[in-house]
Amino acid sequence: MADWTLEKIEALDATDPLAAMRDRFHIPDGVIYLDGNSLGALPRATPDIVDNLIRRQWGDDLIRSWNTHGWIDMPGRVGDGIARLIGVGTGEVVAADSTSVNLFKLVIAALRLRPGRRRILTEEGNFPTDLYVMQGIQDLLGDAVSLEAVPAADIAGAMGEDVAVLALTHVNYRTGAFHDMAAVTAMAHDAGALVVWDLSHSAGALPIDLNAADADFAVGCGYKYLNGGPGAPAFLFVAERHQNVVQPPLSGWMGHASPFDFDSQYRPAPGIGRNLCGTPAIIGLAALEAGIATFDGVDMVVAREKSVALGDLFLGLMEDKCGSFGFQLACPRDGVQRGSQVSFSHAESYAIMQALIAKGVIGDFRAPDILRFGLTPLYLRYRDVWQAVEILARIMADEAWADPAFQARNAVT
Amino acid sequence: MADWTLEKIEALDATDPLAAMRDRFHIPDGVIYLDGNSLGALPRATPDIVDNLIRRQWGDDLIRSWNTHGWIDMPGRVGDGIARLIGVGTGEVVAADSTSVNLFKLVIAALRLRPGRRRILTEEGNFPTDLYVMQGIQDLLGDAVSLEAVPAADIAGAMGEDVAVLALTHVNYRTGAFHDMAAVTAMAHDAGALVVWDLSHSAGALPIDLNAADADFAVGCGYKYLNGGPGAPAFLFVAERHQNVVQPPLSGWMGHASPFDFDSQYRPAPGIGRNLCGTPAIIGLAALEAGIATFDGVDMVVAREKSVALGDLFLGLMEDKCGSFGFQLACPRDGVQRGSQVSFSHAESYAIMQALIAKGVIGDFRAPDILRFGLTPLYLRYRDVWQAVEILARIMADEAWADPAFQARNAVT
Repeated sequence: MADWTLEKIEALDATDPLAAMRDRFHIPDGVIYLDGNSLGALPRATPDIVDNLIRRQWGDDLIRSWNTHGWIDMPGRVGDGIARLIGVGTGEVVAADSTSVNLFKLVIAALRLRPGRRRILTEEGNFPTDLYVMQGIQDLLGDAVSLEAVPAADIAGAMGEDVAVLALTHVNYRTGAFHDMAAVTAMAHDAGALVVWDLSHSAGALPIDLNAADADFAVGCGYKYLNGGPGAPAFLFVAERHQNVVQPPLSGWMGHASPFDFDSQYRPAPGIGRNLCGTPAIIGLAALEAGIATFDGVDMVVAREKSVALGDLFLGLMEDKCGSFGFQLACPRDGVQRGSQVSFSHAESYAIMQALIAKGVIGDFRAPDILRFGLTPLYLRYRDVWQAVEILARIMADEAWADPAFQARNAVT
Repeated sequence: MADWTLEKIEALDATDPLAAMRDRFHIPDGVIYLDGNSLGALPRATPDIVDNLIRRQWGDDLIRSWNTHGWIDMPGRVGDGIARLIGVGTGEVVAADSTSVNLFKLVIAALRLRPGRRRILTEEGNFPTDLYVMQGIQDLLGDAVSLEAVPAADIAGAMGEDVAVLALTHVNYRTGAFHDMAAVTAMAHDAGALVVWDLSHSAGALPIDLNAADADFAVGCGYKYLNGGPGAPAFLFVAERHQNVVQPPLSGWMGHASPFDFDSQYRPAPGIGRNLCGTPAIIGLAALEAGIATFDGVDMVVAREKSVALGDLFLGLMEDKCGSFGFQLACPRDGVQRGSQVSFSHAESYAIMQALIAKGVIGDFRAPDILRFGLTPLYLRYRDVWQAVEILARIMADEAWADPAFQARNAVT
């Protein structure tokens, strides 16, 4: 890789089929944003869309907007917008609540479809909130449930006829490694289990084909690759074959068959709608809808190719320029096996990331020792990767990051 | 009441101590808004606050805003802003999720504090989502729970030593009748039960003193009297004495003692924070914070006095001007016993409300036959009530509302 030059890298940007997508985003001057997997960048269209919703729809039209501006349909409409990105059809996704709340709904919904089985299987090192939510389900349901977290390599071995639900995050948040969705789903189905996928670190980053994988359930995050804004509503998917048999544990009025009849008895809506609970977060949904629109016309296969190329470049440049600074690769080297991020471990990761952020290169520190860089093919350029590694190499050569006074100046409090 | 004149009514507006508060809101021309109990009007400050959050905090400062702009503290900060309105202190309230989700959390949290008791008691005619959520809890927990809904008058009689939780909405959404919070709480405590109050139709409308009532738990809505915008985050209150013993069933990462340690084991945060679940909805919280700020400097006792006076005027004018049109009073006549709304039943309620809305008088139809008018003392004038009843009287005299062609023209589709 030692033959990379800035000229060659600029040529990659010049021929990037997604280059024009960057204009859909506001990227502040002086920032190289490698954290779109934690909070996606602001789409340029979002402020005006939200402002119009607030001033015109809420301000002028008030309560009437539930009908006249289609607010009541937004969870389904925004869900339909996400559907294409995850390989499913209209009426299979709704946007609502948080990823954690949606996982609670669907793990319990899946458990109820497998009476007599009590095991929930998941991966050791799954995203913490996924583990916490499932621990909460175990505590709530007591002896009816047994939760087990095993290393990724042991999942198939731990599968068995007593497993009701396998709940996995598609792309690991620390390492970027990902599961073969179709193979894992088939393996679980062979044992009679159902699978709940968390797509938080893959939706909008990898081509996903839930229906081709015969997936049962999925949840995912709106504020990472989908660019929905801080704390955006999350989404959930229920395969059509399960939709009219699932029994949502969070049975609020928006999941009722006729919410405005004000019946005293809950009757679940037909289809995906029964997985809604409270009143939809309209302002957040409007921002999320604008975030999803940044994918209009984008072929996820092309996006994936660019993401792999960005990651390969990042790793190659790290070997060239930072090979002697003690970084350990913490993600798959093979781009085909890697989600849309690269990760490295280093004993001084926290201080190094602070030094990078101080110079405008924004990535993530993840305890205990991971530097994580998200790769968002819609708005990241090859030259950004080049420059990020250049800056990192200069920081490491300076060793300023190791100076306590420097660290104190750059501390996040 | 027949001696009311527009002149006298304008004199009431001229001496209204809250008259200036109306300037804090955008009220569209030609609209008399009597539905702030369904969706509060837009505060004038909200669009710029949200726009700044989106453009500057999200757009420019990106992921750093979680710390630099205090996003991570918003659920608690906004909760502290609500605290004053409901008679509790700092650190007793968080804003998060929806009312339905929060009710699920707290009814289960309360159940767990009363092991060995299995009855959940509520009111027949409670707001539907409250009933649905509790029906969902009963289905989920099976024989461990028995849900019973009784008429308001029978609650005390149904109380007993096997009741774990009494869950009530403070102000009834249809009739506006409300419970004596302190007396009902004391009655439940005498039997060893805990109480969960839903303040959706009272927070921001009535003076509430949860701590004086020795309340245990409460939830409430952000988008009605609190003016937080469509689908605003809801809030929840846990009395300090319960905070470190409650076990939240929705144990997401934002309720963890150290969410950014990325531990694999859930450990609940000390205090109110453990009742958070997923990532906070920052844009919605910013709008809610702006909504709560419309109460800055407002004495809720003064607001209550105005609300009662507006309601008394409404009932008086209805007797005067609409006494012969077949309306039945569907709310308490005595203002002291009435929430911040008036309600009437009429066989043609739906068509009448459509006719009113067509003339800019926005209230609510609530099945099967209720016309409901919300009274929001911060932005409603006495002259608005006068004019609303004038318009209603003219509609009834015309009987245009009963003309099928008229109804078709004004139908909500």
